[in-house]
Amino acid sequence: GELRYTSPPKATANSAVNCNFEDEGWLWSQIKAEARRDAESEPALASYLYSTILSHSSLERSLSFHLGNKLCSSTLLSTLLYDLFLNAFATDPSLSSAAVADLRAARERDPACISYSHCLLNYKGFLACQAQRVAHLLWRQARRPLALALHSRVADVFAVDIHPAARIGKGVLFDHATGVVVGETAVIGNNVSILHHVTLGGTGKVGGDRHPKIGDGVLIGAGATILGNVKIGEGAKIGAGSVVLIDVPPQTTAVGNPARLVGGKEKPSKHE
Amino acid sequence: GELRYTSPPKATANSAVNCNFEDEGWLWSQIKAEARRDAESEPALASYLYSTILSHSSLERSLSFHLGNKLCSSTLLSTLLYDLFLNAFATDPSLSSAAVADLRAARERDPACISYSHCLLNYKGFLACQAQRVAHLLWRQARRPLALALHSRVADVFAVDIHPAARIGKGVLFDHATGVVVGETAVIGNNVSILHHVTLGGTGKVGGDRHPKIGDGVLIGAGATILGNVKIGEGAKIGAGSVVLIDVPPQTTAVGNPARLVGGKEKPSKHE
Amino acid sequence: GELRYTSPPKATANSAVNCNFEDEGWLWSQIKAEARRDAESEPALASYLYSTILSHSSLERSLSFHLGNKLCSSTLLSTLLYDLFLNAFATDPSLSSAAVADLRAARERDPACISYSHCLLNYKGFLACQAQRVAHLLWRQARRPLALALHSRVADVFAVDIHPAARIGKGVLFDHATGVVVGETAVIGNNVSILHHVTLGGTGKVGGDRHPKIGDGVLIGAGATILGNVKIGEGAKIGAGSVVLIDVPPQTTAVGNPARLVGGKEKPSKHE
Repeated sequence: GELRYTSPPKATANSAVNCNFEDEGWLWSQIKAEARRDAESEPALASYLYSTILSHSSLERSLSFHLGNKLCSSTLLSTLLYDLFLNAFATDPSLSSAAVADLRAARERDPACISYSHCLLNYKGFLACQAQRVAHLLWRQARRPLALALHSRVADVFAVDIHPAARIGKGVLFDHATGVVVGETAVIGNNVSILHHVTLGGTGKVGGDRHPKIGDGVLIGAGATILGNVKIGEGAKIGAGSVVLIDVPPQTTAVGNPARLVGGKEKPSKHE
Repeated sequence: GELRYTSPPKATANSAVNCNFEDEGWLWSQIKAEARRDAESEPALASYLYSTILSHSSLERSLSFHLGNKLCSSTLLSTLLYDLFLNAFATDPSLSSAAVADLRAARERDPACISYSHCLLNYKGFLACQAQRVAHLLWRQARRPLALALHSRVADVFAVDIHPAARIGKGVLFDHATGVVVGETAVIGNNVSILHHVTLGGTGKVGGDRHPKIGDGVLIGAGATILGNVKIGEGAKIGAGSVVLIDVPPQTTAVGNPARLVGGKEKPSKHE
Repeated sequence: GELRYTSPPKATANSAVNCNFEDEGWLWSQIKAEARRDAESEPALASYLYSTILSHSSLERSLSFHLGNKLCSSTLLSTLLYDLFLNAFATDPSLSSAAVADLRAARERDPACISYSHCLLNYKGFLACQAQRVAHLLWRQARRPLALALHSRVADVFAVDIHPAARIGKGVLFDHATGVVVGETAVIGNNVSILHHVTLGGTGKVGGDRHPKIGDGVLIGAGATILGNVKIGEGAKIGAGSVVLIDVPPQTTAVGNPARLVGGKEKPSKHE
């Protein structure tokens, strides 16, 4: 589904980022209830829902199983991936809270997201992002070949190409997600919404820290290309199809190719 | 292949939309003849062509088998999908006539389409569109979880993301198709041609009926982004890479970011 | 990873294009050494690296095995594809030297490419390009149904859609590669770098020779759309998101939608 462009209320945003075990418990109960309801109304899906959700004792196990199945190949077995994901969730609890925040973000900001289980099972943006978070952990552990093998599978299976070294906040929504490319030194803040075909790339002129830094609550429209170590300020909006080579101040909208600034807090643009 | 931008003759267009059982019989014979010829000239493909085309008694069975194989996963079995597609074709005969019209559209409008069987077997835009038509039937039958599971497989396998609720006419060509995103309340008319990376999305400002309405015979170039509940009139042409946020009158061309109108019946544009 | 926009030194470029058996021997030793090192440091990858690289006696065998596994389906078996690729490499030695040149191009021009084996195993642009070279050989041998079946698998698996008839030089880097579409009569020179979402398409106005001709050393930024039988001169640069409908002289930069020329040898543009 597409995005609601209205900013999420600050309270919600904070609760999403600071979610705790109680939140996760509630969310996992909710997901199981949805899966039970769907399995009853659609027997053709019962076996699928049992294997992906209902047979598991936690969100982490369900997600590990589902990602393992989606990303496995004849040479990279689902069992290896399942263990890899489970170990990652056990090692770094922030992976779980990020998954919970991302599920909430999809449910709150995407009007086409009809349930949490719908997002967990079907949103390639959500699944690619959780796999990237695990690849990022491997990258930080200096397990780069494994991080890159996982990255490659995500790029093949979901057509979402986020470098394992990129840092991504919580409550992030990759909506539709096909064609998203995020470079090695990019940073994405909390509660950011990114549509499909968005590139956070380099200009090629410099090495090192060469990719965009995206502030909290930013919205990036479909097909926008942001290049270079530029800063997109908190709450900024980047119009669909824009090519952005400059900093964008907070709460400001940038549109066009090349992008120009068209609005801010005092001068709301059409795109807000 | 890319599009012939010349409009299909009205007679052809109508025959495509109003095709009947006779048409389908002729087309299916043609497809089998092509497959027999190819199997003879290329023994390496014989087994593939037998299992996908020559072993089947109808276009519907061939298509159901092929889609089931392409879209299945370890948790969503090909047999389940095969039965699902076969039942859909039996329930709604308009699915067959739409498939026939879409095959004709590819053969007539795409110079790189060398045979009907080539389109049936290889065109991800054609296959994604037929799967969406079945998902749309499930959606109208209030079988939403199954419709969305099918939608998700199509988005993963073909990188084509058309919401099950979107309404699509007949004789539609999704050319190349990678990266196409079509929202929940979008409507696409008959004999429309849509290139790859095209978005029919929402602006995010409103809920409800929030996606574009594409008239009959419209051509939408590669990478065009059309946002909001705007109306693209019959026979209009949208240039590659355009970002369209406004209505486009019939027989008119829109280009640029943001798109401006550059031609019409009396003032043909360069893009026609 | 993204591109270093600095032109590769001429000497390197020539050595890449004119690489010989010695080069390939060195590169294959290097790839095996990398795989051995990675298998030791990451036991979880040992079996994967053994089956894809270490068990093979040559780059051609490794590549054929890996492509066969990536591109196979339940109806197009990996063994058939493996034999097909091996035979192609045996028939046309330029396929091997092109693969070597492409591996060097990725390692030299993409700062995110940390090793040759990383490119061989994980770069969908590299793998799609090698598969296209084989499909192109089949096309020239008048084995069109098989060439198109292979093309279709590459489009499904990698979301990279390069027509089998397109002619591609050596030392070519398809970086990220998702969404790339290259038409039937397109020609791509040596040492060209092409980012993701790039289209080399037709305008639809004419049949026959209707796609772009890309000179040696050209760089095409993310999301650029080049349409028609236009000539992009040697060393030209096409900015991200540009829509190019005109010839671009050598060493010149084109940006925007529609693209305008903004620099050349005497007037370097910001994008160089």
